[in-house]
Amino acid sequence: MLKEPALAALRGIFGDRASVAAPVLLEHAQSESLVTGALPDAVVFPRSTAEVAALAEWSTLHRVPLIGWGAGTSLEGHALALDGGVAVDFREMAAVLEIRPEDRLVRVQPGITREALNRDLRTTGLMFPVDPGANASLGGMAATRASGTTAVRYGTMRDNVRGLEVVLAGGRVIRTGTAAPKSSAGYDLTALFVGSEGTLGLITELVLKLHGQPEAVMTAVAAFPTVGAAVDCVIAVMQMGLTPARIEFLDADTVAACNAYSHLTLPVTPQLLVEFHGHPAGLAEDVGRFRALAEDFGASGLDWAEKQEDRTRLWAARHAAYRAILAARPGAKAVVTDACVPISALAQAVEETRADIAASGIPGPILGHVGDGNFHAILLVDPARPEEATIAKALAKRLAERSLRLGGTITGEHGVGFGKLPLMAAEHGEGWQVMGAVKAALDPLNLMNPGKLVPGQP
Amino acid sequence: MLKEPALAALRGIFGDRASVAAPVLLEHAQSESLVTGALPDAVVFPRSTAEVAALAEWSTLHRVPLIGWGAGTSLEGHALALDGGVAVDFREMAAVLEIRPEDRLVRVQPGITREALNRDLRTTGLMFPVDPGANASLGGMAATRASGTTAVRYGTMRDNVRGLEVVLAGGRVIRTGTAAPKSSAGYDLTALFVGSEGTLGLITELVLKLHGQPEAVMTAVAAFPTVGAAVDCVIAVMQMGLTPARIEFLDADTVAACNAYSHLTLPVTPQLLVEFHGHPAGLAEDVGRFRALAEDFGASGLDWAEKQEDRTRLWAARHAAYRAILAARPGAKAVVTDACVPISALAQAVEETRADIAASGIPGPILGHVGDGNFHAILLVDPARPEEATIAKALAKRLAERSLRLGGTITGEHGVGFGKLPLMAAEHGEGWQVMGAVKAALDPLNLMNPGKLVPGQP
Repeated sequence: MLKEPALAALRGIFGDRASVAAPVLLEHAQSESLVTGALPDAVVFPRSTAEVAALAEWSTLHRVPLIGWGAGTSLEGHALALDGGVAVDFREMAAVLEIRPEDRLVRVQPGITREALNRDLRTTGLMFPVDPGANASLGGMAATRASGTTAVRYGTMRDNVRGLEVVLAGGRVIRTGTAAPKSSAGYDLTALFVGSEGTLGLITELVLKLHGQPEAVMTAVAAFPTVGAAVDCVIAVMQMGLTPARIEFLDADTVAACNAYSHLTLPVTPQLLVEFHGHPAGLAEDVGRFRALAEDFGASGLDWAEKQEDRTRLWAARHAAYRAILAARPGAKAVVTDACVPISALAQAVEETRADIAASGIPGPILGHVGDGNFHAILLVDPARPEEATIAKALAKRLAERSLRLGGTITGEHGVGFGKLPLMAAEHGEGWQVMGAVKAALDPLNLMNPGKLVPGQP
Repeated sequence: MLKEPALAALRGIFGDRASVAAPVLLEHAQSESLVTGALPDAVVFPRSTAEVAALAEWSTLHRVPLIGWGAGTSLEGHALALDGGVAVDFREMAAVLEIRPEDRLVRVQPGITREALNRDLRTTGLMFPVDPGANASLGGMAATRASGTTAVRYGTMRDNVRGLEVVLAGGRVIRTGTAAPKSSAGYDLTALFVGSEGTLGLITELVLKLHGQPEAVMTAVAAFPTVGAAVDCVIAVMQMGLTPARIEFLDADTVAACNAYSHLTLPVTPQLLVEFHGHPAGLAEDVGRFRALAEDFGASGLDWAEKQEDRTRLWAARHAAYRAILAARPGAKAVVTDACVPISALAQAVEETRADIAASGIPGPILGHVGDGNFHAILLVDPARPEEATIAKALAKRLAERSLRLGGTITGEHGVGFGKLPLMAAEHGEGWQVMGAVKAALDPLNLMNPGKLVPGQP
């Protein structure tokens, strides 16, 4: 609960865009996953960097934490208050500020979603390709270092944020990066803030790299006899240096769920959903090489969807896979895991995970951006049976430990929040303490999204 | 001068691999550029991470700075002692530790040079493409966030370092990154250390991304009627989404110098030296598109060197351009500038710089990795005429200011060292203080390469 002078001062900055109404607080205490937090004390809807800077000054003066809020699609509780504080909802800072087609850059406010951005870019011949599935906000995507289906070709947010404007604890405003394609001028502050999950400051502006809309696109679904064959095919594709724009794995359970939910008729076996972007001749070459490789691994039914409507249908089904899987067990809640391993360990990681899930008695379809070694098991638990959540969390923990054992990471793209906090020491060792030291240097009062990402303050 | 107990303790760690011999000190006080420093107090040649960690403990105990030394090819004084300290020469830590062809990764020690690494990789079908021209060490390249001719396609060290082992001030050892292609697990410490120029710790191991050796390669030289036409052609190439592996600009003075030094017979006009990598059909398509564009901009003599020996000859000449330019004014020393601007501002940046140099009376051929907006003027000064160095430094300062005015950076790839230190505040504003805060958090006694990159300690 905010004390009266603090609330009055907050209203002084935001007027009726500072809310303590119960439904507004409740809306900002929800998550798409099983991770839950507490109610924030207030929610504000800033319209400018100056307002966010004033808010950060206010936060320091009144010792009230700030927690950034984008589209509310994160899965590890990043945007949830743990012990009060103000949720900073960026929905009213959602403009495209500048498009620079010659430099393939766009400057945006943090609240814009990736779908809205790409609508605004449609006529420019350019696109912002990073696609985490959810229609997330760009500020949130930068804060969590999001990626998704297209990272295998276009990279993650790490690779596609050229610069940021950030409001630091206390209200200082900095700009990182320049419009030049590269720089060696000092520490890479852009990279430091991308993935910092609001713990070092609040992102108020982003300069993003754009890519040309592909001249030609080919999409295919390929059915494989076994999980191992599909995964080995991906490994071969990546090792051959083919660069698909997307290469997604769906296990048989995922395919069955997608068939039911999106009215497809794919054979219920492990599938790869693959897309190539390029100029016509190069594309035909890539497609031919992929076909030969896939057939070597026993693929059948390799069907190239050249028509936009067929492609859209397939990718819409892929994007709906999470909802499709949830619908396969009515009333269930999901524990979404996020393993990422070296390509060489992908087959082993997937096989061990499948066996572990099969032995658990809980449904857990597997799908993922396998060109990056990244896959997810969607563990479906019945909320009426609390023992299932316990089993699912144990499965998720074993999967993270398996990733580490195989040389990978506890999270490929979902981030840490506080859901993955207990695993950070195992991944980083002493490096986690270094993260804590950086945090303490930039936010000594621990007001920026406290309780997330870094070790607890002593 | 080291006091006797400190020197004895240093000998306790390194034996006769700790040297205070004058010629050894002198070798580590030299630079390829006009930037000069002081003699270090001692030079050590570690053979293991454990020795470097012991050295960092020693440094804290005796309050003696440590300055990393790779191949000594940096241009802004990064590796020079300013007020004593120990130069840490990594030449005896130069091994390839592990090649993982399936994951396209290699683990190396910091002292290995890029040419040695690529020799070791030759039979694997893989390569490490980052090529700053000089045969630099990989540790030094990571520390300065180096790039060079191939960054336009393969990225800079920012994009090609997957993970690091770093010895921090005081002797703690951390590992950053994993073998997985991506991660969202916390702050990007790898990116923080890449480009930190030894001010946050000493890199003792690197995990690097490898790329497939290209199946097919085409190289061409294209002669343009004017600088503007050549630069506009580059802009068009990049905006069209063609991805040359290299696209280098050489002005007429540079071409004349290369002709004389490398026995070429190129027409003495502005030239683009371009290379494409790919699979055969895609490559032919790229080459055809480039040819059409280049001819639109008035290019002539477009000659594709398909034979390895012709390509090698051209790129050897490009790599020798710095020496060729130096040889064009016998006895001269070079002030090497390093501007990088948004592609949209490239023509203006190059033209204004040419006019500024022409008015100065000092020779200053221009060349660069123009696909990245990065170019260098090599200002040739007669050491016998000190006023020329003053004029050259003023030109370099104006070029850096021009870069900033046009939305670019003071250094595209050479780094800050202490040569560019006076320009950091202009580029980063308050962000430079943030870099200082990060430095103070990780190196509170300011023992890691003091006097470089960050603001002076109060």
